[in-house]
Amino acid sequence: MWGKRGDMVVHTREPFNAEPPRCALAGRPITAVDTFYSRNHGPIPEVDEGLWRLEVDGLVRRPLRLSLDRLRDGFERREVTATLQCAGNRRAGLLEVRDIPGQEPWGPGATSTARWSGVRLADVLAEAGLLPQAAFVAFTAPDVSEDADPPQPFGGSIPVAKALADEVLLAWAMNDRPLPRVHGGPLRVVVPGWIGARSVKWLQRITARAEPSRNYFQAVAYRLLPPDADPAQVRPGDGVPLGPVALNCDILWPDGAAPVPAGPVEVTGYALAGDDRAVTRLDVSLDDGRTWAQAELDAPEGPWTWQHWRITVDLPPGETVVTARAWDSTAALQPESPASLWNPLGYVNNAWARLRLAGLA
Amino acid sequence: MWGKRGDMVVHTREPFNAEPPRCALAGRPITAVDTFYSRNHGPIPEVDEGLWRLEVDGLVRRPLRLSLDRLRDGFERREVTATLQCAGNRRAGLLEVRDIPGQEPWGPGATSTARWSGVRLADVLAEAGLLPQAAFVAFTAPDVSEDADPPQPFGGSIPVAKALADEVLLAWAMNDRPLPRVHGGPLRVVVPGWIGARSVKWLQRITARAEPSRNYFQAVAYRLLPPDADPAQVRPGDGVPLGPVALNCDILWPDGAAPVPAGPVEVTGYALAGDDRAVTRLDVSLDDGRTWAQAELDAPEGPWTWQHWRITVDLPPGETVVTARAWDSTAALQPESPASLWNPLGYVNNAWARLRLAGLA
Repeated sequence: MWGKRGDMVVHTREPFNAEPPRCALAGRPITAVDTFYSRNHGPIPEVDEGLWRLEVDGLVRRPLRLSLDRLRDGFERREVTATLQCAGNRRAGLLEVRDIPGQEPWGPGATSTARWSGVRLADVLAEAGLLPQAAFVAFTAPDVSEDADPPQPFGGSIPVAKALADEVLLAWAMNDRPLPRVHGGPLRVVVPGWIGARSVKWLQRITARAEPSRNYFQAVAYRLLPPDADPAQVRPGDGVPLGPVALNCDILWPDGAAPVPAGPVEVTGYALAGDDRAVTRLDVSLDDGRTWAQAELDAPEGPWTWQHWRITVDLPPGETVVTARAWDSTAALQPESPASLWNPLGYVNNAWARLRLAGLA
Repeated sequence: MWGKRGDMVVHTREPFNAEPPRCALAGRPITAVDTFYSRNHGPIPEVDEGLWRLEVDGLVRRPLRLSLDRLRDGFERREVTATLQCAGNRRAGLLEVRDIPGQEPWGPGATSTARWSGVRLADVLAEAGLLPQAAFVAFTAPDVSEDADPPQPFGGSIPVAKALADEVLLAWAMNDRPLPRVHGGPLRVVVPGWIGARSVKWLQRITARAEPSRNYFQAVAYRLLPPDADPAQVRPGDGVPLGPVALNCDILWPDGAAPVPAGPVEVTGYALAGDDRAVTRLDVSLDDGRTWAQAELDAPEGPWTWQHWRITVDLPPGETVVTARAWDSTAALQPESPASLWNPLGYVNNAWARLRLAGLA
């Protein structure tokens, strides 16, 4: 489906929601397009690239209406390698604590990395001329979502400071090929270090605003609610809006799908610190956290990507739970337990990663 | 001692290390000078303000030698309200897990907030003309520390990107009065959002470098070591260097020193997200984390300060452990347990805050 590999874990076909299995991400700093996770809230729109125009409006001096050729010819071409992570990544771990009706049980595969090419959002905003009152930049897509109440196109916003940052692109290419329709072609925003929901696909309109977007996916969804909140009663503005990605990690290989021979086993995975932070240490334990060994962290592809890690452990025969935990550049550690993190919409499970492995004697 | 209030908790007299009790910080967004914590590694030097000069050297086009008058007259005056926090703040909680020989049992009072006045470090570096190879800015003081191996003046460094940030000052005033000797007079660096150790006092020399400072307090101390490391065997560069402050919080009132009447009690405290992050939520539990209520977060004095919080709880008679935990702008939560965080030098205890209160029937 949608050009994805056959072993994708498809959570829903319509809207299309699918993630690669752990093994498909393991050991690959860049995720192939056919492997990159896909998270949608509505049907994937078919945009006629020739007729398509990008509107830039709101608190700007000169509203713009730009064709793809105009974007390509009028602005400096830029490239950024960036990891995108869905705020629902690893929700499966929260579902083990308590049910979350109506939300897909994403594993650790709602995290992928690509090389994005396009132009700086900042350069386009400079051409439009941001007014001093502009504090947020909102994005709108044409994909009407029935998940929203009332149904509406997908949208969201980021603060002006992030919108003007060097790394935020309007991208028309992914891994050096034209951006495929399933990933937002002809044009999407890429907001490195922020939750995937802010990297709006099929971008149609950029609006400079004094306030955050009122779109359902900014004002109501993608917010951390307290555990006792009733998601059916949420009002716009409740909870904590999600933006920069939280420190997180998971184990990719062995993937727990089949037993592996006991003895020395190389365990690998990814860790991601979010926004402008870095992963500084990754610990692995085979005894539920009583003792830890430090994994080797691979150099990242750039400042906006995950870091893969690897460690050789002596896997005993029988069942072993492998635990992994990451530390960031403030020496902050991930929280221990998904039970502490459970929230009614099931976002931001960044508890220590745990995976059950079977060692063959 | 050193003009501090009488109820300071003095950990050592020489070097002078003292923190205010919880109640002295409670409800005060700005900490009075006589209440502000003091952390030193050597004797407090006596600097002759008239003879004193600030040297700026290393990877710069024009080395500088500046008097205080020259700093005052030659650069734009700037002010920042900033919280400083020692990396050893709340070490007492780690000591309950396992002993940490030779390190002071700091409570939550190694955190204080002041208005700092001076000039931007960036403006002074611009006058000196940073060379392109300059990647770090190192600071040196004259206070020779016997804690260091070998004994040496206190020093440290920050990356150029932070050194050039608007909020980093060379400060000669604290809460609108001349910077007292005990806080680094005549001049100190103030690096908001970073561990206090980088805000070097009695600043004597600023050196632009290609590498971080090799000073003991950058290369050996103020680093997060794995739990099994032997601090006597640490080599320069081991562990994770500490820089930006980690998400943290504690309870300030009631302070647990004396029983309080059972019934409705307003519990207050502080929370701090570090560097450019913000505290977005603060939860309090009276039942060891089974249920939580959200505290009200006071507006901070500015982007570089702690946030005080308050919540009225119904304190039962008898003994109750109050637990507090903060969430930051990535929706990341503090880790639960100090046992997970224990490290041989006792830094960065940012586990959930727990305080035992006695309710009077």
